[in-house]
Amino acid sequence: MRLRSSIAPIPPGALDLAGDAVRRRRLLQSRMLERVARAGYEEIIPPTFEYAEVFVRAGGPEIAAHLIRFLDLDGQLLALRYDFTASVARLAATKLADRATPLRLCYAGHVFRQDPAREGRRPREILQVGGELLGTDGAAADVEIVRLALDLVRCADVEEFQLNLGHAGALAPALAALAPDDQAAARRLIDRKDAAGLAAVAPPLGGALQTLPFVIGRREALDRAARLAPDAGPAIDRLRAIDAALTDDERRHVVYDFGEVRGLDYYTGMHFEVFVGGAGSAVGAGGRYDDLVARFGRPLPAVGVALDLDALAEARP
Amino acid sequence: MRLRSSIAPIPPGALDLAGDAVRRRRLLQSRMLERVARAGYEEIIPPTFEYAEVFVRAGGPEIAAHLIRFLDLDGQLLALRYDFTASVARLAATKLADRATPLRLCYAGHVFRQDPAREGRRPREILQVGGELLGTDGAAADVEIVRLALDLVRCADVEEFQLNLGHAGALAPALAALAPDDQAAARRLIDRKDAAGLAAVAPPLGGALQTLPFVIGRREALDRAARLAPDAGPAIDRLRAIDAALTDDERRHVVYDFGEVRGLDYYTGMHFEVFVGGAGSAVGAGGRYDDLVARFGRPLPAVGVALDLDALAEARP
Repeated sequence: MRLRSSIAPIPPGALDLAGDAVRRRRLLQSRMLERVARAGYEEIIPPTFEYAEVFVRAGGPEIAAHLIRFLDLDGQLLALRYDFTASVARLAATKLADRATPLRLCYAGHVFRQDPAREGRRPREILQVGGELLGTDGAAADVEIVRLALDLVRCADVEEFQLNLGHAGALAPALAALAPDDQAAARRLIDRKDAAGLAAVAPPLGGALQTLPFVIGRREALDRAARLAPDAGPAIDRLRAIDAALTDDERRHVVYDFGEVRGLDYYTGMHFEVFVGGAGSAVGAGGRYDDLVARFGRPLPAVGVALDLDALAEARP
Repeated sequence: MRLRSSIAPIPPGALDLAGDAVRRRRLLQSRMLERVARAGYEEIIPPTFEYAEVFVRAGGPEIAAHLIRFLDLDGQLLALRYDFTASVARLAATKLADRATPLRLCYAGHVFRQDPAREGRRPREILQVGGELLGTDGAAADVEIVRLALDLVRCADVEEFQLNLGHAGALAPALAALAPDDQAAARRLIDRKDAAGLAAVAPPLGGALQTLPFVIGRREALDRAARLAPDAGPAIDRLRAIDAALTDDERRHVVYDFGEVRGLDYYTGMHFEVFVGGAGSAVGAGGRYDDLVARFGRPLPAVGVALDLDALAEARP
């Protein structure tokens, strides 16, 4: 007997690993978990499937189409874990509601995402390790998470890596001046780095929107950004505070990037993506999401990072 | 905002762990994986969801109702991993088809099972660690797996534990003499240790069926079984060979049990369940399943064991 020839042995985008692929991931996972544990983060193991509402509440309605959903025996809509952050927020507000803050939680496991438009061409099951720091809104917490992100990438023995750091508050004042439809259009154009398109959408006086998204660089980029967008002062001041707290060695891997608009509905402060030489896309992301835990009943500022073990394990040193 | 009060924060039977519960499981998992790795087992990470057919093909039609199933975007029926053995068999016959035997594979992760009749009262997500030895049908392989099972339980620092060892071939000749409906009835009665019921179903001359299921004990039970069921000779000889290969210390934890009928559709040779003091039900199970891998296109005898980390981690030493 063979599997029906009409179907592949495993579903499109499913993970199916053996040999070195497993060894690299397990080694990396144990190093990374050791690193977060040493920093005082307590591991949680949330359910592999939760009420779909939990992930939508955390991630917003636009993620609903990317969930792998199914009905439970009692008719409730379930979803495979879309991200750990939603489960962390739910846990912090329910089972761990009595725990004092700051609360440092970490995790290692799979997340499940699908893009109905691109099925079969992308993994739907991704191994992650990450950490979340809840209950503190200062720059020190941002620095702790940026540092954790850098250290976790270092666990992969990659030489070249870069953390692109932005702040949700930098473009916010300029975007808020646009009509809602124009805001969405402007963000798509910023994401594509389409300066001409942006000039057409943004009113001539909305200068920050046409210039700030193209500011990217080391510490001096913060000064340029401040000149271009006086409204963005508090955001830039926070990035300056983070920059000041980093060591020279850490700063070597940090690039300030005001053109990052993904996750802007989610993040409320600094946010970043991590890139390594040899990996085609980001191997991790993180940031501050001060509004999220409150949606589960416990208002707590929070900041966190999650690394993609599959991408990191396959990146060549 | 709070989660709708009409629903619990997590679905019934879902795993939601923090604190010591996680630490115990992770410590145990890493010790157990280290033990199987030392024995030459290579870890695999199969998909969390597969075609439902894979699990049904391995486990038989009666497990279908216990799968957590859902439709994929292309209409195919998927299921969360019901057990690792099915994925191991599929991998051995597909991705690892060119690997020489014996093939030693191990795994650590979740399995997902539900009992529609008892929803909410049992976990639906269970952490397992296990190993499977494919491509060798001798008693030495059986011994290797029994030994592995004992060593994996030892990783939990439990003092009192017991491996109840039976053989699918022991009752098979007596059961085969019954009509199919009577076979099913007899197995239910054996499972309940219902001697009176068995006497009513089994013909008076079917003595083995009325006596063998109640034979349980140390090495001397093998002699009793041989006297009661001469047809069961080959099965008992295999158990004798296993017994002879065990050390005194290992043998101290082994009880021969001819009344174990669960999994009889699945196992083709020796099979066992593991019990520890303090856990209400079996913390692990294993056995020989020589017919299973062939169902995926590669005829390979196989024997394996899987331990339940949740039960083991909660068992008090």
